Amino acid sequence: MNMADLVAACRHPRARDDAAAAAVAVRQATLTKPPGSLGRLEELAAWLARWQHRAMPRLDRVEVLVFAGNHGVTRQGVSPYPPEVTAQMVANFASGGAAINQLAAAAGATLRVIPLSMETPTADLTERPAMSPAAFLGAVAIGDQAVRPDTDLLCLGEMGIGNTTAAAALAAALFGGTGADWAGRGTGVDDAGLARKCGAIDRGLARHAASLADPLQAAASLGGRELAAILGASLAARRHGIPVLLDGFVCTAAAAPLARLADGGLDHALIAHTSAEAGHRRLAAALGMVPLLDLGMRLGEASGAALAVPLLRGAAACHAGMATFAQAGVADRA
Amino acid sequence: MNMADLVAACRHPRARDDAAAAAVAVRQATLTKPPGSLGRLEELAAWLARWQHRAMPRLDRVEVLVFAGNHGVTRQGVSPYPPEVTAQMVANFASGGAAINQLAAAAGATLRVIPLSMETPTADLTERPAMSPAAFLGAVAIGDQAVRPDTDLLCLGEMGIGNTTAAAALAAALFGGTGADWAGRGTGVDDAGLARKCGAIDRGLARHAASLADPLQAAASLGGRELAAILGASLAARRHGIPVLLDGFVCTAAAAPLARLADGGLDHALIAHTSAEAGHRRLAAALGMVPLLDLGMRLGEASGAALAVPLLRGAAACHAGMATFAQAGVADRA
Repeated sequence: MNMADLVAACRHPRARDDAAAAAVAVRQATLTKPPGSLGRLEELAAWLARWQHRAMPRLDRVEVLVFAGNHGVTRQGVSPYPPEVTAQMVANFASGGAAINQLAAAAGATLRVIPLSMETPTADLTERPAMSPAAFLGAVAIGDQAVRPDTDLLCLGEMGIGNTTAAAALAAALFGGTGADWAGRGTGVDDAGLARKCGAIDRGLARHAASLADPLQAAASLGGRELAAILGASLAARRHGIPVLLDGFVCTAAAAPLARLADGGLDHALIAHTSAEAGHRRLAAALGMVPLLDLGMRLGEASGAALAVPLLRGAAACHAGMATFAQAGVADRA
Repeated sequence: MNMADLVAACRHPRARDDAAAAAVAVRQATLTKPPGSLGRLEELAAWLARWQHRAMPRLDRVEVLVFAGNHGVTRQGVSPYPPEVTAQMVANFASGGAAINQLAAAAGATLRVIPLSMETPTADLTERPAMSPAAFLGAVAIGDQAVRPDTDLLCLGEMGIGNTTAAAALAAALFGGTGADWAGRGTGVDDAGLARKCGAIDRGLARHAASLADPLQAAASLGGRELAAILGASLAARRHGIPVLLDGFVCTAAAAPLARLADGGLDHALIAHTSAEAGHRRLAAALGMVPLLDLGMRLGEASGAALAVPLLRGAAACHAGMATFAQAGVADRA
């Protein structure tokens, strides 16, 4: 696949199954509850149906995919943690000690962690494109191929010291604004570090200005391998009929090019939670998406996505398991 | 127990275990994540510890209690459903066909439904006190005795055609305002029905004005048996060291007298979700409480409380299961 092929794939995603969603709405109206009283759970049941292409959605196979990568921009002093922490956390994922291990297990989800050339950080985006087209496409392909077609729901997340800087730069390229509009404190950078972060983003935007009108070139120039893999996995999920839960700021920015390349290109994805990372609320608004949870989390690792899985399980369980007014012998409204 | 005994019990609830909560905070600071990055999950772990009186909180026994009762005020035309639906829905709970059956099962919680004299509705609050002191105390006692002391987390909810009218009247008595400030559409009443509802609340407030300064007398005069049972169960949970998830508008109003009778009297409870019922946001604000979820639900039955259980499971799982920086060999911040 070359860049033109990828653009074409993004521009023509698989169509939604509105008939499946309509079947959900018909059944919801018969269930023993006042119409609409399950609120967003009713919408979620229809959303699952629309993107699973299945009138009775199921959540037997829920998978969490976490992609990890390293970033040359860390040399600009944008994180309070050393870049070695990326690999150390990948080891922590493998031994079961991270938050996402606990949250994936609690959600009844499998977890796979996919490191991407961690020993070779991307280039420093303030100086040159973070990735060549070939490196970008390679990471997209890894994400694409990581998705198992029989998955019922895919949770996406990332790990990468420095990647909130890359994500903020990408968000600025896609939706306008400067470093100050999109940068947050990431893992907890201090005021001086935040100023360095804003500066690095602004220098990156200036250096790559000529190529940023193309969302995929922006992702290659400013993003990172784990962000590219999230893009690839999101695209593959659409092709396979798998709804997606995006985690926080980095994950949402990584998938955002799909929405820029096609109207509704990200409609098969929901943002699982509003991250406390400064730019996330703005990014969700720019995408017209309303996250499911708002609990002040800012960890990444797909932690917010895994935490939101039970909401979808609840929606699917009510839809499948509730009795109708007729079945239960309950009087409907006068 | 007489009314004076109940007032005394409400005024002197069991103390919080701040040492257990502090132990949680100490451990949280060592876990492999940036400090504070799990946001409210970190607070929830400490909250569970504080009210379980246990430094390592657990959620082995989660129970959902749903109380059901009928309301004489339905004769004022405040609901689009006939009062027979209360008993029909209790039958639906028993046969597993309601939303709460699905949501409790999905949350790994047991469900018990406790009907309270459904064949004898409370008196019409526009004409006389909904309950005598004896009837009120009897319902409180049923709620109290329903709580199993070995429960780790208690979800409370209700079913009762007409009870959003009772709850709105009680909220107005406790926090000021009129029917228009607190009444919502409940199960979906139309404009004329909403006007009747506001009128009924205002007539009830006027009729019982002399006794409403006392939160428990207000609950007896304006509330209902299922609301009184929720009050009793909330008080028992505090005594037994059980944190509580309150469901929506009716449930929150039912427990609110505890906050009026003692500073922090409801600190062992969280509001699980912001209901779409009009008065709930105002009620949560009056109590200084921030609900966990906001999904536009307005069903009752403890549905929102059960849906929030996995958030607490996630918080407890992260707290208990994550590795420390030292255990995982992950570098802490510079």
